[in-house]
Amino acid sequence: MPTDLPTDEWLRLADAVARLARDWLDDLDRRPIAPRTRGAEAIAALGGEAPEVGLGHAVVDRLREVLPRARAQNGRFLGYVLGSGEPAGAVADLLASVLNQNVTAWRSSPAAVTVERTVVSWLAAALGCGGFGGSLTGGGSAANLMGLAMAREGRAPAREAGRPEGVVYASEEVHMSIPKAVALLGIGTRNLRRIAVDGAQRMRVDALERALAEDVAAGRRPIAVVATAGTVATGAIDPLDAIADVAARYGAWLHVDGAYGALAALAAPDRLAGLRRADSLSVDAHKWLYQAVDCGCLLFRDAAAARRAFSDSGEYVKTGSDDAVEGFAFFDESVELSRRFRALRLWTSIQFHGLGAFRAAIARDLAHARALAARVAAEPRLELLAAGDLSAVCFRHRWPADADARNAALLRAVNARGRVYLSNAVVGGVFALRACFVNHRTTDADVEEVVQEVLAAGEGVG
Amino acid sequence: MPTDLPTDEWLRLADAVARLARDWLDDLDRRPIAPRTRGAEAIAALGGEAPEVGLGHAVVDRLREVLPRARAQNGRFLGYVLGSGEPAGAVADLLASVLNQNVTAWRSSPAAVTVERTVVSWLAAALGCGGFGGSLTGGGSAANLMGLAMAREGRAPAREAGRPEGVVYASEEVHMSIPKAVALLGIGTRNLRRIAVDGAQRMRVDALERALAEDVAAGRRPIAVVATAGTVATGAIDPLDAIADVAARYGAWLHVDGAYGALAALAAPDRLAGLRRADSLSVDAHKWLYQAVDCGCLLFRDAAAARRAFSDSGEYVKTGSDDAVEGFAFFDESVELSRRFRALRLWTSIQFHGLGAFRAAIARDLAHARALAARVAAEPRLELLAAGDLSAVCFRHRWPADADARNAALLRAVNARGRVYLSNAVVGGVFALRACFVNHRTTDADVEEVVQEVLAAGEGVG
Repeated sequence: MPTDLPTDEWLRLADAVARLARDWLDDLDRRPIAPRTRGAEAIAALGGEAPEVGLGHAVVDRLREVLPRARAQNGRFLGYVLGSGEPAGAVADLLASVLNQNVTAWRSSPAAVTVERTVVSWLAAALGCGGFGGSLTGGGSAANLMGLAMAREGRAPAREAGRPEGVVYASEEVHMSIPKAVALLGIGTRNLRRIAVDGAQRMRVDALERALAEDVAAGRRPIAVVATAGTVATGAIDPLDAIADVAARYGAWLHVDGAYGALAALAAPDRLAGLRRADSLSVDAHKWLYQAVDCGCLLFRDAAAARRAFSDSGEYVKTGSDDAVEGFAFFDESVELSRRFRALRLWTSIQFHGLGAFRAAIARDLAHARALAARVAAEPRLELLAAGDLSAVCFRHRWPADADARNAALLRAVNARGRVYLSNAVVGGVFALRACFVNHRTTDADVEEVVQEVLAAGEGVG
Repeated sequence: MPTDLPTDEWLRLADAVARLARDWLDDLDRRPIAPRTRGAEAIAALGGEAPEVGLGHAVVDRLREVLPRARAQNGRFLGYVLGSGEPAGAVADLLASVLNQNVTAWRSSPAAVTVERTVVSWLAAALGCGGFGGSLTGGGSAANLMGLAMAREGRAPAREAGRPEGVVYASEEVHMSIPKAVALLGIGTRNLRRIAVDGAQRMRVDALERALAEDVAAGRRPIAVVATAGTVATGAIDPLDAIADVAARYGAWLHVDGAYGALAALAAPDRLAGLRRADSLSVDAHKWLYQAVDCGCLLFRDAAAARRAFSDSGEYVKTGSDDAVEGFAFFDESVELSRRFRALRLWTSIQFHGLGAFRAAIARDLAHARALAARVAAEPRLELLAAGDLSAVCFRHRWPADADARNAALLRAVNARGRVYLSNAVVGGVFALRACFVNHRTTDADVEEVVQEVLAAGEGVG
């Protein structure tokens, strides 16, 4: 613009940015893991007004200013539940944005719709949920919202009349996106029962059954039970089969939040055999398939239930075909209308590396978590708080007093040292340091460095 | 994986994909605009099972198979409201996916949060809404959902108790995402009043006022008035100032759906002076700033209202800072938790070209629409149905009988010819061909070709 960019000029720009990205990857292991900047400094470097006249290729210098203020997700980034950003898949985003397919309906982009339906079927197969449909989402929050919207329309329809009435059940350890969805959907967080967990942070099925029985006796309608396959704090997997039995007995929809943990089924299928009992299931390829954000997914058993919740096609977007392939429209089965070609990244990444490489990487993450738990258990200055069912390890430094405050200070100190990034959790009422392995870059040496960095930082806090 | 990809190998892959993208751009104008494939053919080419063993660099050959099955958005793609995919910004997606910043909170990525808050301020300034906050979204559907969620919590709070009660008002021409949002939020589509429009498809303020008065008299609570700044069918702009006055009088939230049209303010600010009256405002940079999908945005006047609707932070994600910059978290003000670094594309694109180039391109789109309307009006075989306030032009071929069916057949024939892509609308009860100019590639010659292609296809239908 004002005329279109000549394509040789464009290739020169793409090449410069690819080299910038390569430099980032080359230095990743050496960079401070949490950037050393402050609010005012970042605004001075990256803020300001929009220029009226363009910079042209000098924009690459502006992009270079982003790097030192970004978080470096090397093998020692173990905070939250964040996939490590597999770079082969990342190149597909360049093509996706140039192609600019709007993944609304087959009619609009046969290629993009076919690729997305293909990767959805790959995810379903990986989880033992062959035959499930679904779509990619911005993340687990959107997928959980959509799963509960389907549950509401299935059990307490409110699209037309509004004022939905019924109850949702989830464990005390459920992710914050579930109360957020219950609030948005007009069900109300007062109608979310937080079911007690056992000593391993898994939902207590007896407590779930009691809550359901009480509500039904009082004339209240169960909408959905939300089981978690991988709690964010400790990676606990709720007892899926037993919960599915109870949900079925009370006619409740079963939504499984597997955003963090479901994909462990690729390496440890036995632990997650109950996934296939779900009516809807959230899973994030930007977590345990290491894809760059965003690559969430909602899977569901019955596409008609999705259409009941979401189809509201106007004249404007009628597809004009009844063919199951060519008449397909994602907007009939999801919240979004315009949709990015998110699937190209995952399709490229899986084909580049092969599914076997992902199985191996997930197995390695599980092994790293076991190794860290064992190392912590063997270290007298540290205390293991939870090792969980997956790859989250919660622990703390032992201190004779003020353990919570001191461990919070320790966490800040560890991250400020710049070598290891941990986050925190509350386990059994106490403040925990938390390392979560969903990182294809982590090495055995990185696991040992977690221990060394925590101990070294602990001396400063002590 | 199994070990990380060596960076020189990665650069080779990025280079091959960039050349593929360059080839796409080189051929864009010559490609059939709608791909010539069928369901089974596309599945055979792009579907199948996930490979257990990776293809490595041969994945580029797989990516090449995507191209002929994708829609070619050249200068004659005028369907729906879809920005043309500005390629300079597209290169930023390569870097965004390699950096893999999760744009949750400042703490997690100072660079990405600063860049997103910067482009949000650029969008607000471009619309005359300086001081508004907001965040990027997957598109207008998510932004409209969030705007109405804020309205509900502001006027009929239901997060805790559920069962929201109240009424939303929008014109008969409102986008389908509004009833979808009203349904999802538990308000119920029965409580969405569809206000009549005038002969130019703009909401009738007298009818709005009457509907509000009736509801209030009956003891019902107005939640929100939704004004549209650019209806999808004809680009009509509702009378924003007059609607704002009425909404204020009845204590209703004013949400403006400016997904299509708000950014015309960059070239024609007078038509959109009322935007700044909004409490919340949707705007899609992937429409009239030509960005690749996805780059939607919700702007709002009062961040506290956003936090009332969305903040539900668990212990897990507490930011631990009260500083207005460093304590900022997008998840407190939006539906999403994990969030892609969408802002890098827009930040790069605007700095590469300069805002002035976008003003000029939007002015050219407006001129192209006027030119097509004039050309249609002067052509005896065609009938102009609506030229609207923006860049959507609705018209049809004249036929003595069966005009709707014949124009529907004509639309299919035009698109099948592969040179021009139009979509359809219903205007005044009749089937219309619709051309919408949000395309930086369109030339004056392309506008003339629309007429020639419609007339040529019309001979086959006649």
